[in-house]
Amino acid sequence: MDPTSWLLLGRTVRFGDTDAAGVMHFHQLLRWCHEAYEESLERFGLPAASLFPRPEWAGDPPAVALPIVYCQAEFRRPLLVGDQLRISLRPEALGPEGFEVSYSFAREGQPVAQGLTRHLAITAAERQRCPLPEGIRRWLEASGLGEGVRPL
Amino acid sequence: MDPTSWLLLGRTVRFGDTDAAGVMHFHQLLRWCHEAYEESLERFGLPAASLFPRPEWAGDPPAVALPIVYCQAEFRRPLLVGDQLRISLRPEALGPEGFEVSYSFAREGQPVAQGLTRHLAITAAERQRCPLPEGIRRWLEASGLGEGVRPL
Amino acid sequence: MDPTSWLLLGRTVRFGDTDAAGVMHFHQLLRWCHEAYEESLERFGLPAASLFPRPEWAGDPPAVALPIVYCQAEFRRPLLVGDQLRISLRPEALGPEGFEVSYSFAREGQPVAQGLTRHLAITAAERQRCPLPEGIRRWLEASGLGEGVRPL
Amino acid sequence: MDPTSWLLLGRTVRFGDTDAAGVMHFHQLLRWCHEAYEESLERFGLPAASLFPRPEWAGDPPAVALPIVYCQAEFRRPLLVGDQLRISLRPEALGPEGFEVSYSFAREGQPVAQGLTRHLAITAAERQRCPLPEGIRRWLEASGLGEGVRPL
Repeated sequence: MDPTSWLLLGRTVRFGDTDAAGVMHFHQLLRWCHEAYEESLERFGLPAASLFPRPEWAGDPPAVALPIVYCQAEFRRPLLVGDQLRISLRPEALGPEGFEVSYSFAREGQPVAQGLTRHLAITAAERQRCPLPEGIRRWLEASGLGEGVRPL
Repeated sequence: MDPTSWLLLGRTVRFGDTDAAGVMHFHQLLRWCHEAYEESLERFGLPAASLFPRPEWAGDPPAVALPIVYCQAEFRRPLLVGDQLRISLRPEALGPEGFEVSYSFAREGQPVAQGLTRHLAITAAERQRCPLPEGIRRWLEASGLGEGVRPL
Repeated sequence: MDPTSWLLLGRTVRFGDTDAAGVMHFHQLLRWCHEAYEESLERFGLPAASLFPRPEWAGDPPAVALPIVYCQAEFRRPLLVGDQLRISLRPEALGPEGFEVSYSFAREGQPVAQGLTRHLAITAAERQRCPLPEGIRRWLEASGLGEGVRPL
Repeated sequence: MDPTSWLLLGRTVRFGDTDAAGVMHFHQLLRWCHEAYEESLERFGLPAASLFPRPEWAGDPPAVALPIVYCQAEFRRPLLVGDQLRISLRPEALGPEGFEVSYSFAREGQPVAQGLTRHLAITAAERQRCPLPEGIRRWLEASGLGEGVRPL
């Protein structure tokens, strides 16, 4: 399986993402990062129901939660409504209980912004640190193999 | 207790609420409605933990959920960053299992927008219709008493 | 050109769209509606820059704005993270100066929610009612032709 | 004037800020940071219209924009609907053309999260670096004087 199929995504800037300065309002980028992370897992073959909490009546929720403990973003170019962006993800393990994902946003081949989310595995019930779920570990490993082919 | 203390609220339009047309982006108004509804309940004396779902590890969640089954909004004037709004709420029972809240937004005494949310009581576990929680019933009744004094 | 190519869209519910009840938080649906409207115009061949305001330094903004004067939404089924939705749009002219778009959301063939946005054409500078832009008129007309083939 | 009047703010976690894990969804914190920054300027005596872009028809927009070029956030404790937070701001000049604001969030005296936004002054028309607006300079200076009295 070619890692670019789950590590290279697209997104169009929408009107509601902008503010009265006419450009993307900064914190929307972090929303885009999380949605790209979810889409990447999905494309890799990990259904949302296996990783993200759902209400009890919808079936057993996953035993492990992966809350974000840190995030950052850097803004290099103003983004306009209609801009078509390429998002390149770079997931990386941080020991057995955590990982981070770097997100590079480009428009017409030019880097325009960067984001980063850092996640920690905890048990959903007791909120104690625990090993990463097996699916996430596979995604991290397979993503690392793609090192040489990532296009951005 | 004076109903205006929980039925008349204020809010300032923030920069992130606007879009590239320079004015409030339409769906933010419905977020403001829900936040006004939460603030109204809180001011009336109903803590959020008694009405809104929380994670299990945080204690017993409320047995009844109050999902929105319908909402609408009308936009009369463009709203600008920094605008100071008055929000007037008008909650009304819809039989024993539902209620709606109308929200009137005014700026310097002029109506600028209207919102409405309609809620249905369901059991959190089985998602079956059920009677409104006692706190909500008290809030609806006490709000009705204020009929004559609502300022907007 | 087959109208379904711009009137039938898809979307996946993301984690940030949900709230502590475990389901999609109501006002996100209206954000989805607007994004579907933008995507529909784009697929029809109308670039965002020709219809949505941009900052002055980015070139001449469109002379006509299309603010939303009314919106509504109806929620029939709770939506969960990962749910794959089909969105069916039905744009309709409301005289020479306005139009509305109905949005039907379905999951696995079952209707789950409905949205509606009503738009008015105004001059961007003086904010006076004016005729709909030519591109929007073409989109409305072409969308009407598809009446018989809309799948939802 | 006592700096705590514009550097120490409050905020309640709302239902729409949470996700299906039952806690505040991470990127909402950065929205709260920006809203706290706006509220701080307002309380200091700088009206939004003097600092944030507005549509042209609403009067002359400010000549200088203050886009965010970097942001970060750290999450220490899960935040629940209804939680009452204290937000302590610490603005700091970064040379003549930039500044950053640190935001500390506390609940019942315990630190729960941190945020940071870094801003650059640019001319609104040409988007070239320029000196900070005079109002911002006064706010930065006056905020620095409060060094010894900040409570968090």
